Amino acid sequence: MSPNVCPGFAAGGAAVGLKKKNAMDLGLLVSESPASVAGVFTRNRVQAAPVLLCKKRVASGQCRAVIVNSGNANCCTGPQGMSDAEAMGRAAAAALGVPEDMVLVASTGVIGRPLEVSRISAGVPELVERLRPDGFEDLAKAMMTTDQVPKWRCLNRTTPDGQFTLCGVVKGAGMIRPDMATMLCFVATDAEVAPGVLKDMLVRSVDRSFNRITVDGDTSTNDTVLLMANGHSGVCVNRGKAREIFQEALDALLLDLARWVVRDGEGATKVVDIRVVRAANRADADRIADTIANSPLVKTAISGEDANWGRILAAAGRAGVVVEPDALDLYFGDVQMVRAGVGCGAAAETRATEIMKTPEYAITLDLNAGSGQASRVTCDFSIDYVKINADYRS
Amino acid sequence: MSPNVCPGFAAGGAAVGLKKKNAMDLGLLVSESPASVAGVFTRNRVQAAPVLLCKKRVASGQCRAVIVNSGNANCCTGPQGMSDAEAMGRAAAAALGVPEDMVLVASTGVIGRPLEVSRISAGVPELVERLRPDGFEDLAKAMMTTDQVPKWRCLNRTTPDGQFTLCGVVKGAGMIRPDMATMLCFVATDAEVAPGVLKDMLVRSVDRSFNRITVDGDTSTNDTVLLMANGHSGVCVNRGKAREIFQEALDALLLDLARWVVRDGEGATKVVDIRVVRAANRADADRIADTIANSPLVKTAISGEDANWGRILAAAGRAGVVVEPDALDLYFGDVQMVRAGVGCGAAAETRATEIMKTPEYAITLDLNAGSGQASRVTCDFSIDYVKINADYRS
Repeated sequence: MSPNVCPGFAAGGAAVGLKKKNAMDLGLLVSESPASVAGVFTRNRVQAAPVLLCKKRVASGQCRAVIVNSGNANCCTGPQGMSDAEAMGRAAAAALGVPEDMVLVASTGVIGRPLEVSRISAGVPELVERLRPDGFEDLAKAMMTTDQVPKWRCLNRTTPDGQFTLCGVVKGAGMIRPDMATMLCFVATDAEVAPGVLKDMLVRSVDRSFNRITVDGDTSTNDTVLLMANGHSGVCVNRGKAREIFQEALDALLLDLARWVVRDGEGATKVVDIRVVRAANRADADRIADTIANSPLVKTAISGEDANWGRILAAAGRAGVVVEPDALDLYFGDVQMVRAGVGCGAAAETRATEIMKTPEYAITLDLNAGSGQASRVTCDFSIDYVKINADYRS
Repeated sequence: MSPNVCPGFAAGGAAVGLKKKNAMDLGLLVSESPASVAGVFTRNRVQAAPVLLCKKRVASGQCRAVIVNSGNANCCTGPQGMSDAEAMGRAAAAALGVPEDMVLVASTGVIGRPLEVSRISAGVPELVERLRPDGFEDLAKAMMTTDQVPKWRCLNRTTPDGQFTLCGVVKGAGMIRPDMATMLCFVATDAEVAPGVLKDMLVRSVDRSFNRITVDGDTSTNDTVLLMANGHSGVCVNRGKAREIFQEALDALLLDLARWVVRDGEGATKVVDIRVVRAANRADADRIADTIANSPLVKTAISGEDANWGRILAAAGRAGVVVEPDALDLYFGDVQMVRAGVGCGAAAETRATEIMKTPEYAITLDLNAGSGQASRVTCDFSIDYVKINADYRS
């Protein structure tokens, strides 16, 4: 059975009235003792106040807690937004009895509305009371916006020096595109890791997971991934075999959570791996995979279970890199649809259509040009995506 | 009253069974005498056989006719596709009694299916019989795919040397994005213009019209704009005031047709001008305008008449250029929504929501950074867009 606690950490959620219907909208993740911390943040030029605050505080390499709200992104809120982010952190620091600069802050929700920070301050004492070692599900619930389900996962691994645990929560279903696609993800571990090592490992894992997914091609202003390591297990993973095991575990956890974000993508009914192989180089492969994965015409064809492979070749052709049409091979699952730029006929289309009826499959484009490869995890564009986003604020 | 003929030209359409329900799917535009010709073509790396053939033939600067089919793009069809494109041109050349290399060829429709060229060859004689001076509407009908209405327009202008006429037909409703957004547009004029001048003027007009519109961000494999000038009016517009008048007329015609493509965009209910002003430079303005105009979150908010301006700022922030969030001003029509990066409050939102209920309006983002400006014409992403594209081939 997979674990549901991470030794030395507690988590929880509460409803303080930022969202409707008394839904949980304030969450907290706390380490019993000072933890190493590393963060990766949105590359959007418009960054929310909590992101700016968080980046500053993460630089110390140490923290005790993260407080997060949903229902309001506290973005494009000017100087008041920064005061509100600081006040939110101050309320958590006071209730936990820890220094203010040891508390990180995150927000998600509508952009451009003033944060009702008084509701947050008033709710923090109750939130602290609700902290529990197995509170990750509540924390995940408190972070949800258009997410359909709370998303969290724990796993553990054994090293020669003993066992460590990783528990991660993630939110995000729309405004999802690499660099970085998370919106928010917080990971706790009881492994012992130096802050610099933690950052290296986090960047590598994010690059393999959240930077490879897309729902709608829009990068959020609030994307934040935080990894806290409190050393409670006594297992040091700074180097050698233990580091390899930790990296593998972190990769597995973040990839699992990232795929879950796509599966829970707004209106999504399909999860499709877009694989580009044998491109001239890695950068070309990356641009082609990204263009295919974000093409509205490809994504609507996936939604309609229509093996309209011409749209995939057309997207590859507009990716801005050299593509030799007559060299292209295309596969849906293991069915070859295109050989040397020409369709393989009706029988292949029939078999591909069967594959498209399944909920998860791969589309592979072979450029026969070199050794570059890249991939993306994408979902379909459905009628529900439009319904969700046309009415988001009402 | 605007004209509906262009002296010395005839046009027409016929149904030859490439599309369902006996809809017109084969069109022809013919000049009585050899005409100067210029063309602008898709920059997609995957180009349909007719595009490759057309580019080669346009290089001579002269042509007599264009034959076009809908229902099949003759793209990703290998060597057979090129033979079919040539056969289609040959059939028209024979029926018209003109040299084969004086006939241009265009196709639009599904990618990747073999062209049923025997239906085309069999239908050409009837098509030629149906040619009429006022046949532009039939030609426009014969080019339609997901277009809701045939799109064509004629206008005339007077120069010191006399009057000339321009008639243009366009098709396109999806797979529409700059570079180039048309899919297909054919323009006839009875002005007298040298091929080199014609090309310069066409490139300039396309840059101001079709290269500034987007429906769904996908560039087609078949985009083609052709401009034929047969000199029938005796009015030479190669230089001076006459050239200025011709350029203005061509700009007006193509911009009108381009906006019409957006208005008739798949599932579109709104036409929105995205204007970016006072960016650091023109290239920055262009990238920001393009990113906003193609953002699914912006386009669904437009569909839902939701003044969710945070999505516009977020799109600007991910455009890949330097943006100073605290300097941004944003307007819906003439209503200021954001001042110095902060929302202008509920009253402004209420007024903006009223503007969003109208069918056509402008969104202006002021970066307060320099003198660069750019614009796009976009439409909303509606439920019908998804319905149309999930089922396109069925």
